[in-house]
Amino acid sequence: MPEVLDVTTTLPTGFDEKLEAARAASIVLATVTTEQKNRALEAIAAAIETAAPEVVPANDLDLANGRENGLSAALQDRLRLDAARVTSLAAAVREIIGLVDPVGESIRGRNLPNGVRIDQVRVPFGVVGAIYEARPNVTVDIAALALKSGNAVVLRGGSAAENTNRVLVRVIQDALAASGLPAASVQTIDEFGRDGARRLMQARGAVDVLVPRGSAQLIETVVTESKVPVIETGAGVVHVFLDESANEQWAVDIVHNAKVQRPSVCNALETLLVHEAAAERLLGPVLERLAASGVTVHGDEATRALFPAAVPATEDDWATEYMSLDLAVRVVSDLDQAMEHIRRWSTHHTESIITNDLGNAERFLNEVDSAVVMVNASTRFTDGGEFGFGAEVGISTQKLHARGPMGLPELTSTKWLVRGSGQYRA
Amino acid sequence: MPEVLDVTTTLPTGFDEKLEAARAASIVLATVTTEQKNRALEAIAAAIETAAPEVVPANDLDLANGRENGLSAALQDRLRLDAARVTSLAAAVREIIGLVDPVGESIRGRNLPNGVRIDQVRVPFGVVGAIYEARPNVTVDIAALALKSGNAVVLRGGSAAENTNRVLVRVIQDALAASGLPAASVQTIDEFGRDGARRLMQARGAVDVLVPRGSAQLIETVVTESKVPVIETGAGVVHVFLDESANEQWAVDIVHNAKVQRPSVCNALETLLVHEAAAERLLGPVLERLAASGVTVHGDEATRALFPAAVPATEDDWATEYMSLDLAVRVVSDLDQAMEHIRRWSTHHTESIITNDLGNAERFLNEVDSAVVMVNASTRFTDGGEFGFGAEVGISTQKLHARGPMGLPELTSTKWLVRGSGQYRA
Repeated sequence: MPEVLDVTTTLPTGFDEKLEAARAASIVLATVTTEQKNRALEAIAAAIETAAPEVVPANDLDLANGRENGLSAALQDRLRLDAARVTSLAAAVREIIGLVDPVGESIRGRNLPNGVRIDQVRVPFGVVGAIYEARPNVTVDIAALALKSGNAVVLRGGSAAENTNRVLVRVIQDALAASGLPAASVQTIDEFGRDGARRLMQARGAVDVLVPRGSAQLIETVVTESKVPVIETGAGVVHVFLDESANEQWAVDIVHNAKVQRPSVCNALETLLVHEAAAERLLGPVLERLAASGVTVHGDEATRALFPAAVPATEDDWATEYMSLDLAVRVVSDLDQAMEHIRRWSTHHTESIITNDLGNAERFLNEVDSAVVMVNASTRFTDGGEFGFGAEVGISTQKLHARGPMGLPELTSTKWLVRGSGQYRA
Repeated sequence: MPEVLDVTTTLPTGFDEKLEAARAASIVLATVTTEQKNRALEAIAAAIETAAPEVVPANDLDLANGRENGLSAALQDRLRLDAARVTSLAAAVREIIGLVDPVGESIRGRNLPNGVRIDQVRVPFGVVGAIYEARPNVTVDIAALALKSGNAVVLRGGSAAENTNRVLVRVIQDALAASGLPAASVQTIDEFGRDGARRLMQARGAVDVLVPRGSAQLIETVVTESKVPVIETGAGVVHVFLDESANEQWAVDIVHNAKVQRPSVCNALETLLVHEAAAERLLGPVLERLAASGVTVHGDEATRALFPAAVPATEDDWATEYMSLDLAVRVVSDLDQAMEHIRRWSTHHTESIITNDLGNAERFLNEVDSAVVMVNASTRFTDGGEFGFGAEVGISTQKLHARGPMGLPELTSTKWLVRGSGQYRA
C-alpha cells in the first residue's frame, strides 16, 4: 500500500504540515469510491447530530464574544447555531449524499486516426481552500461538498466563529477517521489568525483553488491578494427592466418577488429600470405594491414625478447592493439606455427584462453580459436549488471556469486519459 | 443603432482608452455572425500576404536590434519572419476560418417544473489580454483565435518584436475596419513598455482573462502578479515510466520519439524512470538509440552502472525542463516510487507509462495528477492538433477552467439564458 494511506489519523499542527497533509489526503480522496464517500458523509451527519450538546455551547461562547465585540445583529444571526440549526446542518449533509458524484464523468472522448483513444474525465481539484466569516454552516456545507467531489479542504472560518468551527471540524475529522478516510481531508487554519489567511492566499501549488464566501470586502481582498486561482462568488447589483410592452401583472409580481421575498441575498433586485413610455402605466401599481411591503424607493427625477413618496436617488444608489427593503428606480428612454445603465452599474450577476416584444427579449438575452439573463422571470430563480443542482456551491460572477450557480461539477477539474499501443508521433 | 458601433474606425492612443475601446469592440464582436467573423479573418489573411514587403523589413529591424542586444540564437529564430513564414501566418488564419464557432453552443438546458426554460450557452470572454515575447506568430494566432471566438484582444508582444508586431497589428486593424468590424478588436500596448504589461495585469474588470505565452519566468511573473484571472500555459517536466512488463520495442520507439522528435517543445520527454527489474533489459536498447541521435543522458547511480556513458544526475536534473537533447534517467524500485517521483518533480503537464500490466496502467491513469496521463503512447501527442481541435490556443497546466490542450471553446465563458412567462419564486 502507498504510504499516503497513513494520513487517516495523522493530524499535524504546523501550517505547512497541514497543507501537506491536505495534499496527501486529496490523493486518497481522488480514488475512493462514491460509496465510501457517501458512508463518510452519513457518519459526519450522524456525528454532527450527536455533537449538538457540544456545538451549541461553543457557539454560545462565540455569540457572547460577538456581542462584546459589537458584531451586527445580522452577523449574529448568521453565526447562531441552536439545536434546530444543528439538525438542519446534518440534513444538508444528507442531501449531498443523494447528489450524483461528478468524479469520473466523461466529458469528451474519441479515437484518433492512429488508434490512440483519448478521454476527458472529471477529476477532483485536489485541495480546496475556503475563506469565509461568521458562518459555521459554511464549514459543514463546504466540507461535505468538497468531500463528495473528492477534494480535501482547508478552512479559514474567521475569528467570530472560531469556537464553533473548532468543534465542528473535530467532529467531522473523527467521523472521517471512523469511516476509514483521512481525518486531514477537512482541516481548519483558524488558529493562525489573519496570518493564516494570508499564507493560504499565497499557497499557489499547495492549494488548487480558493473559494471566498462573505462580504464584498472579504471577496475583494481574496480576489486581489490571492496567488491561488479564485472562484469569485460576488455581489449582486441585480436589475429588472420594464420594457414598453411589459405585462402589468407580470411586472408587479416579478418586481415584488425579486425585491421582497428575501432582500438579504445576492439574487434579490436592487435597481428597477422602466421604459419612459411605460412609466406612467406601470410605476404606480409596481411601486405601490412594494410600498405596501415596506420598501423604500430611491427614485430619479422622473420616478419621483410619478411616485412622490420616493426619496431622491444619487449615483451611489445605482452602485449599491442594498440587501434590504430599499430599491433604486430610474426611468430610461429605451432598451439601449437600459442596457447601457446595466453595462455601467451591474455586477454581472442577474438581470431580467419584462417584455412582450420578441426582438427586445432576444437583444436583452444576447447583449447583456451577466451570469444569468432572464426574460419575464424573477431574478430570485438564480439559485443552484432552483436550477436543479441539488446543492449549491455558490453563484460565480467571474467568467473563468464557472459562471452563475455552481453545483458539484464546478468543484472539479478535468484530466485527459490517453490509451495507446505503442503509438508515437510521425 | 447603439453608439458602440462607432468603434469600427476609432483607434485611441491612451492606455485606459485602449481598454475601453477593446470593451466596446467586444460588445460588437459578441453578437456578430460566424460569417462576418470568417469574412474578416479572410480579409486579415489576404492583408497579411499583401503586407509581406512591409512586414519583412520591420522584422529585419527587430532582428538587427536583437543581435545588438545579444538575443539568443533560439529566440532570434522564433523572432524571424521571412516571406515563407509570412505566408504560413496567413495560412494559419485561414485554418481558423474552418473551425467550428464555439459561440452559442448549448452546454446544458432544461425546463424547470414551473415552466421556466434555462439554457447554458457559450459566450465570448469579452476582452482577452495576451503577454508574450519575441513571437510575432503569436500576434496573428491569438488575434485570429480571439476573433473567431468573439473576443477583443489586447496584445503585449514585448520589445524584441515591437516593429514587427506594430506592422502586423496595423494590417489586422485595417482589414477589420474594411470588413466592417471594430478596428479596436485587436490592439497592441507595446508602446507602453513594461509599465503597460504591469497595468494590463492590474486591469481586473477591464480585461476578462490573461494568457501568458513564453518562458517559464514570464509565465511565473504573470501568474503571481496578475489580478486578472490567468490561463497558465506552463512548462513541461514530462516523464515516461518503463514498467517491469514494458514491451521493449514500444519503450525504444516511444522514448526516442518523445525526446528527439522536437526537443524544444513542452510535451517533449525530460525524465525517464525505469523499474529496477526492467533496467537491465531495457536501458541498453533505449539509451543506445537515444545516444545515436545525440542525446546526453544524465543518470542516477543505477543508470550509470548499466550505461557508463551517462553523466551523473543531481536533484537539479529532476527539476529541469531541458528543451534540448538531454535526458534525466532514474531507476526506481516500483510503480509507487515512480509515481512518488512524478508527484514531487512533475509540472503536471504529461506523463506516460509503458506497461503490459492492466492494473498498473489503471493505477497510473487514476493516480497521476497531470493534465494528460498516457499508457503506451508518446508524450508528443499532447497537442491540440493531434487531439483534433484544429488549432491550439496553448496547453493549460492549471486546473481551473481548462486543463491540457485548449481549443476555441476554452476561449469562451458561458451564460445562463432564462425564459419565463411571469414566473416568480414561491
